[in-house]
This record gives sequence, structure tokens and C-alpha cells, in this order.
Amino acid sequence: MDPDTLQETLRLAQESQRVLTTRIGQRDYLRFSHKFQCFPEGTVVFGPQFIWGYPKIGRILRLDPGLQAQFGQAFWVEEKIDGYNVRLFRHGDEVLALTRRGYVCPFTTDRLQDLLDLRIFDERPELVLCAEVAGPENPYNEGSPPFIQEDVQLFIFDLMRQNCPGFLPQREKLQLLEAYSLPGVPGFGRYRAGDLTAIDSLVCRLDQEGREGLVFKEDSSRDHRVKYVTGRINLSDIHVSEGSFQQLPPEYFLHRIFRLALFLDEHELAPTAALYQELGRSLLAGTLDAIHQYQAQHKVCHTFRCRFRRRANAELFLQTLEHLLGKGQVREHRLEQRGDFYHLEFAKVLPRATGLLGHALGGGIVFD
Amino acid sequence: MDPDTLQETLRLAQESQRVLTTRIGQRDYLRFSHKFQCFPEGTVVFGPQFIWGYPKIGRILRLDPGLQAQFGQAFWVEEKIDGYNVRLFRHGDEVLALTRRGYVCPFTTDRLQDLLDLRIFDERPELVLCAEVAGPENPYNEGSPPFIQEDVQLFIFDLMRQNCPGFLPQREKLQLLEAYSLPGVPGFGRYRAGDLTAIDSLVCRLDQEGREGLVFKEDSSRDHRVKYVTGRINLSDIHVSEGSFQQLPPEYFLHRIFRLALFLDEHELAPTAALYQELGRSLLAGTLDAIHQYQAQHKVCHTFRCRFRRRANAELFLQTLEHLLGKGQVREHRLEQRGDFYHLEFAKVLPRATGLLGHALGGGIVFD
Repeated sequence: MDPDTLQETLRLAQESQRVLTTRIGQRDYLRFSHKFQCFPEGTVVFGPQFIWGYPKIGRILRLDPGLQAQFGQAFWVEEKIDGYNVRLFRHGDEVLALTRRGYVCPFTTDRLQDLLDLRIFDERPELVLCAEVAGPENPYNEGSPPFIQEDVQLFIFDLMRQNCPGFLPQREKLQLLEAYSLPGVPGFGRYRAGDLTAIDSLVCRLDQEGREGLVFKEDSSRDHRVKYVTGRINLSDIHVSEGSFQQLPPEYFLHRIFRLALFLDEHELAPTAALYQELGRSLLAGTLDAIHQYQAQHKVCHTFRCRFRRRANAELFLQTLEHLLGKGQVREHRLEQRGDFYHLEFAKVLPRATGLLGHALGGGIVFD
Repeated sequence: MDPDTLQETLRLAQESQRVLTTRIGQRDYLRFSHKFQCFPEGTVVFGPQFIWGYPKIGRILRLDPGLQAQFGQAFWVEEKIDGYNVRLFRHGDEVLALTRRGYVCPFTTDRLQDLLDLRIFDERPELVLCAEVAGPENPYNEGSPPFIQEDVQLFIFDLMRQNCPGFLPQREKLQLLEAYSLPGVPGFGRYRAGDLTAIDSLVCRLDQEGREGLVFKEDSSRDHRVKYVTGRINLSDIHVSEGSFQQLPPEYFLHRIFRLALFLDEHELAPTAALYQELGRSLLAGTLDAIHQYQAQHKVCHTFRCRFRRRANAELFLQTLEHLLGKGQVREHRLEQRGDFYHLEFAKVLPRATGLLGHALGGGIVFD
């Protein structure tokens, strides 16, 4: 889009209160806190550079007839990785990583040199790399893929260009990832809705391996996308989020039970006693754990660990997170150098669980 | 309260759109759809007769320190029965039963002669009897107390007077119930917060028997009330509501898991594999059942059975329910005379589960 149109739309968005000035460390920039016209939430503006927000992808709950209903043409099939969404872009001499909501992430930015070869930005500085960062040592998600044993890894799934909506075509993306030896999400090739048996086998394999699911991208100019997750990931999601009870919207749990039931039914898997037990334990054990935490320390927290290259970035990360979550909601437990890394351990306070348990355990009354 | 004040407050409530004209069969009356000043939601007005709505009672989630925190003086302890709340009052030559929200209930009204001795209204026509109706053959609740094997029973827990807020004192209530041989809720006597051990034993016995819980009523002019439920009823509630997934607010399930965890912790009951399994099954099996129902009949329903004295009341009941739930949402399966009763079997369609399953099983996409 031409610079005048971009700046004019930005001005209208600012008038409509959809844009906030955001400061991370020494950096000031504009961030769309809400969707406005062609800009999704999470779009950011660094002077003349517009980095489009990553759009939401709808979900089908059944492969059959979901694929048939959604796709008139062939589509690419890629793995959906259980991590957090980032967009990487060149800004002056640096490459910055943005979260889904458009915050510069001091953790991801610090670790880019370990996660991918950044030379692509020397030759193609206009590109924006859309990727998932996943692994047990990440500062945002409690869950992570079973095939990553430590730290984090990065998996690119889309390329965009600065100042442009939309993605590069799949074939161009694959060529660029290969040419620059960049890590892409696992791709399973090109299918049609009629290839249901093959796709179903793939889904069942991912389910058994505890992986999250698939993203389908139509091989056409409309680039229609849809996601589908395994049954297993719903159980894992409930399990890892148990400690965050009250913090997540209550639909979080019910949606996952609903998806799990639809998955079992579509794949003709009768639920076992072990599955029932795992589901019940996932829901109840985390709540009991939160009660015990409150009794021991008068708050409910969740602990995260991650490693940084530079101490200053670890400190900026904690400061940024506290600014976002509120004063006193982030507690540094440890920051120590081991080899080339600074290992950070910190806790996020879960204010709703803390408040509710304080009230309930203090003998307060609730109305419902 | 004096008639002029009542009518003047009613007029203000009508101006504020808190009052609706309600027609059940041939009866027209006014009903408070929302709280207004001293009138709770569910207050009804039949000409000069004002029947106060039944107030909400707050819940403690721990006996200790809940009782200590809530009660400065002795309190009465009564059983909380798992049914639906009604208010009975004399109107002309009839006695009518109102639901919590203030609808005249054609089912309960039809069955009053079987549920209690109505002579109290001959001598004390100004009284309003507040009671729970419970049992497996009721048209509203999926669950019912384990000690009722068939049909329904009625349990009085409070007495009010027409045109007056507040309840009669506990001793006066007990005397009247005895004098007129009326069925009251089981009462366990008068306690103080220091009698925690005795109350705790009582709660544990109710829990083992699958009963719902207790209501505490302070023996003082402020008449402060608080309720407390057993761990077991939370599991039962989740189990009986499984078929109604999507229909109930999502908090319904999470609140019960939270209460169950607090109960287990307070009573030092470690959760067992059987408990986890029961919880998981309760949540998942009902969702699977709803999927199978939708696949078989393109809708998700819940079936109820209840018995009437008069056929016309069964018909009025179905007509009233359909008016409240929407056209096509109630389906009569069977209405047949057996002995002195007309046995009705009907189904309520669960529109949200039906809509969501139609969308998901049809291959539609959802955003979340």
C-alpha cells in the first residue's frame, strides 16, 4: 500500500482510539490495540514501517466434512506448533521480535541469533518472518511440544512484507526458507479434501505423539486458512492450565472438553477409564495445588524459566512484563550466569485465583 | 408495608421497566423481572397482594473460618434440599405456587393437594410458604435428592406474609409447621460457630449420603443467612448437567470444581483415582452423548417426566414452558392416564448445544 494511504488510515485509527503509543525499553512506537479497517489487532508502526498484525485463523472441529466444506481447491498442510506467535522484522540495524499483540519481546529478540540465521534481512530487509517460538523454557506458555527437550526453538510458517497486507505465496515462502536455510514448521505437502484418509492418518500420528495439530492453507489467491487440533492437545492444554484456573476465561476448559469429545467421536475412539481419570485429575489437581500454594505463601503463582544472552535483556523483559501485568505481579526468583547464558527463573502472580482463594479461605461469602 | 407505599413503589418500578405483565393461562398479574428498591426479582403482584421475591443467599466455601466470620451469634442449621424454590400463597379460593422468578407453576399448583395440608391458608390466609420441591419426577431439575425415589416432595423452609418483606422468626415458623402438620426441611438445631466439630460431622454425613448441604440462619433480628454445600453435590451437579453443556454458563462447571477442591482440602480428603475418573466421565460422557443425540435426531434434548392430577394443567404447563423457552423448544412425548395421575413425558431442546453441534458437525469454522 502507498505511504500516504497508510499514514491517512493510521491517522483515522488514532482518532478512533485504536492505536496506543507503546514504550519497550528506549523504544517508542505505535501499536494497534484493536482492529481498524485493514489493520488487525497487533499491527505496529515504527515511523514509516507498518508491520501487519497476524490474522486470526478459524478452526474446524471435524475433518469430515470440514475440509470438504472449507476448501474448493488443493491446500498445503503444515504442522501447528504449540508455542507463541512472533513476527520478526528489520528495524535500522536490528531485527526485532513482536508478540501477537504487538509488543517488542525482549526475550525473543535477545535470542534471535540462536534461533535462526538472520542474513535474509541483509538481502530482503522488507520481509517480515511469522513464526512460532516453542519449548519448555519460554516465558509465556506453560505447555510446549513433546519433541523439544530444553530451551526454545523457532518455526517459520509465513512471510509478509512491511507495509503490505497478506502473505507471500506458499511456493515462494518455501524457496526462501530453503535458500536461506531457515527453520520452517514441518510441512506435509499438498492435499485435496478427497485425501481424507491420508490426512486422518497424519492427524492420528500427531495425536499419538502429543503434538498440537495442523494448519491448512488453500493453494489459491484467496489463501483461505483453517486449523484443526488433535484430541490429545486438549487434555494437555487443560493439564498445563490447571494452575491458571480462574485466570483463563471459563470457556477455555469447556471448549477443550468439547473438542476432545468431537475428536474421539470422529476417530471412533471410545473414552477409557484412564482418559476420564486424566481429565478429572487435570481439572482438580491444579485447583488443589493452587489452594496449597495460597495456604503456604498467600498467593497463587506460576513459575517460568528461560535463558538470555544478555543480562540487560532479562532485566528489560521482567520490567516490561511487570508493566503489562501490573506492579507486584512478577517476581524474580533467580537470574544467574551459566556458560553463555543468563538463566532466569520468575513467577507470575495469578491475581484472580489469589483474590478468590483469599476471600474463600478467609470465610467470605460469594453469590452465584 | 402500607398499601399506598406499595402501590407508589410499584408505579416507580413500572416506570423503570422492572415489572412485566405476565399471563399464565387465564391469569394476568405483574412480575418483577429485575430487583427494584425493596422488591427482589421474582416479586409478584396480584392486585392488592404483593408476594415478595425469595432473596438470594450467599455461600461460604469453608466452614472454618466461614462460620466464625459470618456469625456473631447462635444460628439455626437446616438441610439444603436439591430441588426448585417455590412460594405458595392464597389467591381468592385457590392456592398458587410461584417459581423463583415469579411464574405461576401449573405443575406445582396442580400437585399442592398431594404435597401438603392446605388448611393453614383457611386460618392464616396472609401467609406465604417458601419451600423446595424436589424429586426425580420434576419438570425443571435434572438432579434430585437420593432419598426421594419417585414423584416429588415438598419441604418448607420459611414463612413470609403477603405485603411484607422478611421472614417470620424461626421459632414461630417451627410452631406453625407443627400446629398444621406441615412438611419442613430437616432441621438440625441451634449451634454456634464454636460448635465446628459437630457441624463438620453433620456435613460429612450429608456428603456420604449424597445430600446437598446446609443453610445457616442467625438467631437474631438481622436474620443473616449463609449456605454451604457438600463436596459430593458438586460432582452430582456436574454429572446431571453434562447433557446441558453449552446451555449453562461456563462458570457453572468451574465453580463446582473449585468448591469440590475446597471441600476436599478442608476435610483432608485426598482425591482418589475413582474421584478423578468420575469427574472426567461426568464432563466428557455428557458431551459425547450430546454428539450422538445430534447425529441421531439433529437436535440435543433433555427428557423430563412428571405427573399431574388434571390433564388441563399438564397442557397448560407445556404451553407455558414453550412460551418461556421459545416455539419448538418443548416436545411432548407422552401424556397418559395411569390411576389417579396423568403421566407426562416431555423434552426440552437445548438450543445452544444443538446450534453448536450443527455448525461443528457440518464442517463450519469457529474463532476463539
